[in-house]
Amino acid sequence: MKKNVPEKISCLRQAMVRHNLQAFIIPSSDPHMSEYPPERWKSRQWISGFTGSAGTLVVTAGKAGLWTDSRYFLQAEEELRGSGITLYKMMQPGTPAIPQFLINELSPGARVGIDGETWSIAETRRVREELKKKEIALYTSCHLVEEIYTDQPVIPENPVFEVPVSVAGKDTREKVREIEEAVSRYGCNAILLTALDEIAWTFNLRGNDADYNPVFVSYAFISDKEKILFVNPKKISFSIKEELFSQGVKIKDYTEIHSFLRQLSFYYRLLIDPDKVNRSLYDILPEDVFIREAASPVALLKSIKNPTEVNGFRKAVINDGIALVRFYRWLEENWQTQQLTELDCIYKLKAYRELQVDYVSDSFNTICGVGEHGAIVHYAATPESNAPLLADTLLLIDSGAQYRTGTTDITRTTALGTPTPEMKRDFTRVLKGNIALSRARFPAGTRGSQLDVLARQYLWEKSLNYLHGTGHGIGHFLNVHEGPQSIRMDENPVALQPGMVISNEPALYRAGQYGIRTENMILVQEEERTDYGTFYSFKTLTLCPIDLTLIERSMLSSEEKEWLNNYHRKVYKKLAPYLTTGEQEWLNEKTRPLL
Amino acid sequence: MKKNVPEKISCLRQAMVRHNLQAFIIPSSDPHMSEYPPERWKSRQWISGFTGSAGTLVVTAGKAGLWTDSRYFLQAEEELRGSGITLYKMMQPGTPAIPQFLINELSPGARVGIDGETWSIAETRRVREELKKKEIALYTSCHLVEEIYTDQPVIPENPVFEVPVSVAGKDTREKVREIEEAVSRYGCNAILLTALDEIAWTFNLRGNDADYNPVFVSYAFISDKEKILFVNPKKISFSIKEELFSQGVKIKDYTEIHSFLRQLSFYYRLLIDPDKVNRSLYDILPEDVFIREAASPVALLKSIKNPTEVNGFRKAVINDGIALVRFYRWLEENWQTQQLTELDCIYKLKAYRELQVDYVSDSFNTICGVGEHGAIVHYAATPESNAPLLADTLLLIDSGAQYRTGTTDITRTTALGTPTPEMKRDFTRVLKGNIALSRARFPAGTRGSQLDVLARQYLWEKSLNYLHGTGHGIGHFLNVHEGPQSIRMDENPVALQPGMVISNEPALYRAGQYGIRTENMILVQEEERTDYGTFYSFKTLTLCPIDLTLIERSMLSSEEKEWLNNYHRKVYKKLAPYLTTGEQEWLNEKTRPLL
Repeated sequence: MKKNVPEKISCLRQAMVRHNLQAFIIPSSDPHMSEYPPERWKSRQWISGFTGSAGTLVVTAGKAGLWTDSRYFLQAEEELRGSGITLYKMMQPGTPAIPQFLINELSPGARVGIDGETWSIAETRRVREELKKKEIALYTSCHLVEEIYTDQPVIPENPVFEVPVSVAGKDTREKVREIEEAVSRYGCNAILLTALDEIAWTFNLRGNDADYNPVFVSYAFISDKEKILFVNPKKISFSIKEELFSQGVKIKDYTEIHSFLRQLSFYYRLLIDPDKVNRSLYDILPEDVFIREAASPVALLKSIKNPTEVNGFRKAVINDGIALVRFYRWLEENWQTQQLTELDCIYKLKAYRELQVDYVSDSFNTICGVGEHGAIVHYAATPESNAPLLADTLLLIDSGAQYRTGTTDITRTTALGTPTPEMKRDFTRVLKGNIALSRARFPAGTRGSQLDVLARQYLWEKSLNYLHGTGHGIGHFLNVHEGPQSIRMDENPVALQPGMVISNEPALYRAGQYGIRTENMILVQEEERTDYGTFYSFKTLTLCPIDLTLIERSMLSSEEKEWLNNYHRKVYKKLAPYLTTGEQEWLNEKTRPLL
Repeated sequence: MKKNVPEKISCLRQAMVRHNLQAFIIPSSDPHMSEYPPERWKSRQWISGFTGSAGTLVVTAGKAGLWTDSRYFLQAEEELRGSGITLYKMMQPGTPAIPQFLINELSPGARVGIDGETWSIAETRRVREELKKKEIALYTSCHLVEEIYTDQPVIPENPVFEVPVSVAGKDTREKVREIEEAVSRYGCNAILLTALDEIAWTFNLRGNDADYNPVFVSYAFISDKEKILFVNPKKISFSIKEELFSQGVKIKDYTEIHSFLRQLSFYYRLLIDPDKVNRSLYDILPEDVFIREAASPVALLKSIKNPTEVNGFRKAVINDGIALVRFYRWLEENWQTQQLTELDCIYKLKAYRELQVDYVSDSFNTICGVGEHGAIVHYAATPESNAPLLADTLLLIDSGAQYRTGTTDITRTTALGTPTPEMKRDFTRVLKGNIALSRARFPAGTRGSQLDVLARQYLWEKSLNYLHGTGHGIGHFLNVHEGPQSIRMDENPVALQPGMVISNEPALYRAGQYGIRTENMILVQEEERTDYGTFYSFKTLTLCPIDLTLIERSMLSSEEKEWLNNYHRKVYKKLAPYLTTGEQEWLNEKTRPLL
């Protein structure tokens, strides 16, 4: 018989009593700090009934609370109804952070439990430091969920598949050599990899264990003595095993990571990333292993795409562009006559993408919001929320796909009917920011936070802003969100380097009215070397028309118009060869020069 | 009989033997980490003969080296000739940093000495960490200079004078209350102040102990129990003493700081700034005093000018503007006929400033460079380098003054004769950057590093750059360079806040040809509050025409022209009432609208 949420909470509280814990915290992460954890690790969802991707459950003897961010306030309210769990709206005035909540609720000497497997080293430290202020102790090896969640889903056993060197650009041996070189620069001779995208990249393998991200559950240990991939051997075909062997890689079972780390000798000087490695692994490292903590150098190596990968991205954006042209043409012709809805758009866009060569899956849950839904940054249309496309409003669609040659991420905002002058002015301000960033040239060493203002300046000018980042890294047939670089208001010490692929997505949200976002993928490339240094610039990769009917042309400078016209000329030139005559005519009209 | 440099080095080596030290390092700082140390602490200059403001002497048994930066390469080469001291050119390929030099020269177990009085806590730690790599020890209480420099100048005894509340805007009692409030936010009940400008600001006093900075040698200790100013009592008049007493401030002699700190009880939870407090003071703090290290909150309080201080700045820029108008008019009329030189300009500009009400001194050594000298960032004209003002080149003058109501800092670049098209394009790019930063609007929380690109973008566009910061904080009748805010490529976590006064000085240097810099002082002010946050903007304070003959007007947008015309209109309007008819006519022509 299935337990309901209050029963599960009650079981958890009994387990807490058995372990003498006054509180227990369950986050939404997995042992690999994945953005999309496999079903196996969705225990917070199982216990609380809240299905959103981000949320943390805190249970004390008398209270149960779920902390989530503004994306999920409505959904959480609904899903938590009758559960006995209180919703804590993060970043709202009066909402305590979790450690503060625990400090308020518990007495000095209290014991708080977590399962270190799903907590990063750094996060564990932060919470422990906070709780210390009231002499509350944090215990990191509390496997309470296992005790009560007896029918936990198994770890996926989906087969792993290869990315050929003709697509990856480098074989594993070469990548491993680069990793070892980077690791040695930290005075280390070994690195423990736990982030699934870093492992997939290193071994030129992909999997199907998570939504949207083509990764597989695994660990890896690379040292000057051995290179070991820890993965369920059932997932590895004989030919992949042979290939890995020829690259100098041994395979051990996923579950062997613990015993392996436990027996490491003092020979090892191990590099680990405290934001990525989970606390359980850290806890079992022998004391005489020298440990150095630093941001994973593999993330940086992975972020700098080699020419073959860049070439793959160019193919991917053509595939994506074809699907997008077909979709937007279909949309234009049918939204009124067919009384289309948000979900209709999502299905149709996916259908067009699925027809494309090399398509594997979407790269994230499509955001498709009409009218006021467009102003909800991470809006996910559901059968309940699904809105019809009405005239004289805006439609914002943020979507992307995994192609075998690269990952895509694109947002376009489209006028349905006749836009108001305010919509056009807002759209044009966002577009000017997108163009300013696209056209930027900057010296080597420049960080994303230095360039961010270029995308925001025309909004700030009118005391407007958007509160998310302007750009995130994008993986090569890997995670659509990757580090280490970013273009944000916050400081991030990573310099932008040639080969990095980043999103460029300024936006404006008018709550209750409409949302606007224009997002292209941009590639960092070297421009020239002068007496003043080496200068880089961006190349826009994404191929899809920008809605000309939304542009207030008097607000564009001649340089901006020139950029837009050149961009549209390129979109037409690159996509036309793959289109029917009717589609070409449509695209020709959509990419007409703005005079 | 005076010793020459080799003799002094030899005496130092004998002292090193007595103290069993294998190396000794002498920096150019004082116990207060001042930019301009009083004569008393110019021991590096005394021993080495090198008179530049920045340089560090390192002496081992066999070698003596002086490290300085590119500003001083020529001067140091000349001044070190025959001294036996090798010049180490910092930031040049092949030049080791000082710790690396010592690691190369010394054996494990060696002992390196410094006088902790002239080293910050943070810098001492950095060097110690480096030397540890080769098991070289750093000793911080080595007063070797005193042993050999027997006729050291005394600490200045110049009288201290008051800044009335009508100029400072707040009395000491109020400032001390704000400091105590800030200190308590760090969980502390006391703060040790060692930076001379922080002390001057806190007690509404100024002095005359250093070049350019109107400060006086002192320490201060502010706790919830007592507020003590450590200063030579000879410098304090009876009326100032009375006034301080009425504000709750006690005076102790400057030299008593050591015995005072030594006897601190465990009652104190002391806040110190590791970049400002010297190592000697740190070493004598009793072990049972709780110490918290953080950037001094007084620096932040001081940087946010109150309305009275802002008003004072407005007076100061009028004083400065009048002097500058007179100077530039004189320059225009005489540079060719009188065959003027750089030094002529420096003397004349100072003479015009000295005639202004409230003038106290210059705020730094005027940089006046004609032609290729303009491309030397910190060029200081000397009788030897002094160049005549030739036709068809550019003249860069960066200067400023201390007025009793505020400090100024301004750079203008002027065409002598007919500028080339390249000069005009370069000048216009720099100006566009200056205008873009001046016009910026930005949300609360924005840091200088986010806005820096606005000033550089038009240079970067052509793969040009300048390698210094765009903006530094400016004190109120205090140091012309102050923190904690800045506008630079480097990250600085301090957010810009209303009341901060900052320089805006984009530039371009064509080595061997000319230098361009346009610098105004800008004030952060609140602009408006919207649904998207609180937005700030800059107000340009400086009043002095920008050379219209150097502008390539086709490169300016209509908004930029409008800004420039508004600026010039304001310059005329604010200065004209104080000018003669002839000066008014001249200024009217210089501030004519650009169409």
